[in-house]
Amino acid sequence: MIILNGASSSGKSGIVRCLQSVLPDPWLTFGCDSFVDALPKKLWSSPGGIVFDDDGGVSVGDDFRALEAAWTQGVVTMARAGARIVVDDVFLGGAASQQRWRTALGDLPTLWVAVHCDPATAAAREIARGDRTPGMAARQAPLVHQGVAYDIEVDTTHTESLTCAQAIASRLG
Amino acid sequence: MIILNGASSSGKSGIVRCLQSVLPDPWLTFGCDSFVDALPKKLWSSPGGIVFDDDGGVSVGDDFRALEAAWTQGVVTMARAGARIVVDDVFLGGAASQQRWRTALGDLPTLWVAVHCDPATAAAREIARGDRTPGMAARQAPLVHQGVAYDIEVDTTHTESLTCAQAIASRLG
Amino acid sequence: MIILNGASSSGKSGIVRCLQSVLPDPWLTFGCDSFVDALPKKLWSSPGGIVFDDDGGVSVGDDFRALEAAWTQGVVTMARAGARIVVDDVFLGGAASQQRWRTALGDLPTLWVAVHCDPATAAAREIARGDRTPGMAARQAPLVHQGVAYDIEVDTTHTESLTCAQAIASRLG
Amino acid sequence: MIILNGASSSGKSGIVRCLQSVLPDPWLTFGCDSFVDALPKKLWSSPGGIVFDDDGGVSVGDDFRALEAAWTQGVVTMARAGARIVVDDVFLGGAASQQRWRTALGDLPTLWVAVHCDPATAAAREIARGDRTPGMAARQAPLVHQGVAYDIEVDTTHTESLTCAQAIASRLG
Repeated sequence: MIILNGASSSGKSGIVRCLQSVLPDPWLTFGCDSFVDALPKKLWSSPGGIVFDDDGGVSVGDDFRALEAAWTQGVVTMARAGARIVVDDVFLGGAASQQRWRTALGDLPTLWVAVHCDPATAAAREIARGDRTPGMAARQAPLVHQGVAYDIEVDTTHTESLTCAQAIASRLG
Repeated sequence: MIILNGASSSGKSGIVRCLQSVLPDPWLTFGCDSFVDALPKKLWSSPGGIVFDDDGGVSVGDDFRALEAAWTQGVVTMARAGARIVVDDVFLGGAASQQRWRTALGDLPTLWVAVHCDPATAAAREIARGDRTPGMAARQAPLVHQGVAYDIEVDTTHTESLTCAQAIASRLG
Repeated sequence: MIILNGASSSGKSGIVRCLQSVLPDPWLTFGCDSFVDALPKKLWSSPGGIVFDDDGGVSVGDDFRALEAAWTQGVVTMARAGARIVVDDVFLGGAASQQRWRTALGDLPTLWVAVHCDPATAAAREIARGDRTPGMAARQAPLVHQGVAYDIEVDTTHTESLTCAQAIASRLG
Repeated sequence: MIILNGASSSGKSGIVRCLQSVLPDPWLTFGCDSFVDALPKKLWSSPGGIVFDDDGGVSVGDDFRALEAAWTQGVVTMARAGARIVVDDVFLGGAASQQRWRTALGDLPTLWVAVHCDPATAAAREIARGDRTPGMAARQAPLVHQGVAYDIEVDTTHTESLTCAQAIASRLG
């Protein structure tokens, strides 16, 4: 299992697609975007669900947390059942978010990957994407890596996603 | 857990969104579309993965089957961990596909739902959607319900998705 | 040129895709959705642009109107230059919206099509689509056909998009 | 009017969204992607329409060319009617493609922009996007700038879209 953590617009999705391309075996991918898509629309902008503020802030409530915990266990089960899985996540809780995964993972071998990006560059890419609330990248950047331990760290500021993916793939041996 | 089975363009996705809207608790949704999205692109049109023929035929290979089995176990784990889950699937193998789910589900309470649609109507909706290969609906219609046992059967030919969802929701008690 | 007018979720897009399929010649399609996509994101939710209220209301401002007028002239030019064009629009201003098109069209032959849908059915389909603000269909239904003259009227409440498209196509003969 | 020309995956769309963000006035955007979306699906992979080969090659036929010519005239009309328009295009015909625009533009003031990207980098971004046929970037790169004259040239290889957009915007002065 590979877990990528990085702020919004840091380049996680592009790296995931490149990993799926360069790794010889087939890897499934899940992440916070596919999880949010699986939620009922009424949890979007519900206090118990996930609220996207106009300034780029994201806050989540109890319903979100409960479903996310069950989802995490399910993704780990897929990996234990033999599927190779690459997850991209945004550790809004920093080290606590990593601990949540570790508890679910148990002894399952996992490669932890930091995806860094200079905040000004991420903010520029947020505008170029056009599908994210401006400010999200800048607000998440200082939070997501706090206290998190990694096996490998990549930085998309001056390095293409494909090159980052090749570096990650080479760590899988 | 709720499992909907029906051919392509029979109206499963619309029913799922309506179920998420009308059910008071939050329900997560997964299905064959989100599973295929999670696959590496190189498994699309690979013999070991999933091949969409020009005439609407769909065939899947060993890599697909192995990942699907792991995914199924993971989705069941999410439900066992407390998440309410609605799955939409296309039982290309009919009764054998249901048995695959049953083995993974064990004693987990599950509502089995047939989603029917008159094949000519489904073929017309396929054209109106514009994002499916013409012929897929017609080819899958005779296969997917063979030997499958249901708790409730709905038909979208003359009934709106919302009405179908309300009928399903009323069966949950 | 064919111009379809109907409220949100009345089924215009499905009819357009079916028209493009059943008509023997190639027809280009443009409409309010593609126009809104062409706007800068900053006009979405700007008073001068287009504001989508939480209750399904839509209001447009001066910048929107000015760009829309230029866009309308451009679409008419495409038709005059020989392209077959099918437009789907929402006449929020009823007869005044039609007059706006007529002024731009001049003597260009145009087939005017009403797309009706029972408001309760449209509201149900709005939930099934999941990508529109609930309430939009109900708010637009009483407005869009006021004082508008048509060559043909179709109703998607009990008729598939493909059948509606065939009826429209038969009027072009 | 601003016309950007560059190969697939060279970064045109990101620059367009940034231009719409940084330019104080509202600018509409059209381009080859929105034009292809407006075509009937049956022209996709029809010899008279547009054919995307498995190796990234793109070829277009007579129906495509006729509709494109009408579309070009319509876009120019929008600009003459007062709309600010930014177009992103792929000049598969090089100088001949530019001449086609020039004929339609007449004396309308136009800023011509080259969007360059190192082919290896564009090919890497093509994999990271995951929605383009691999090979398209590499095949188009040597063709699209042949004999084309520009007012400004930007290169996305080492420069963010937002920075490129700011350079372009400063030329409008």
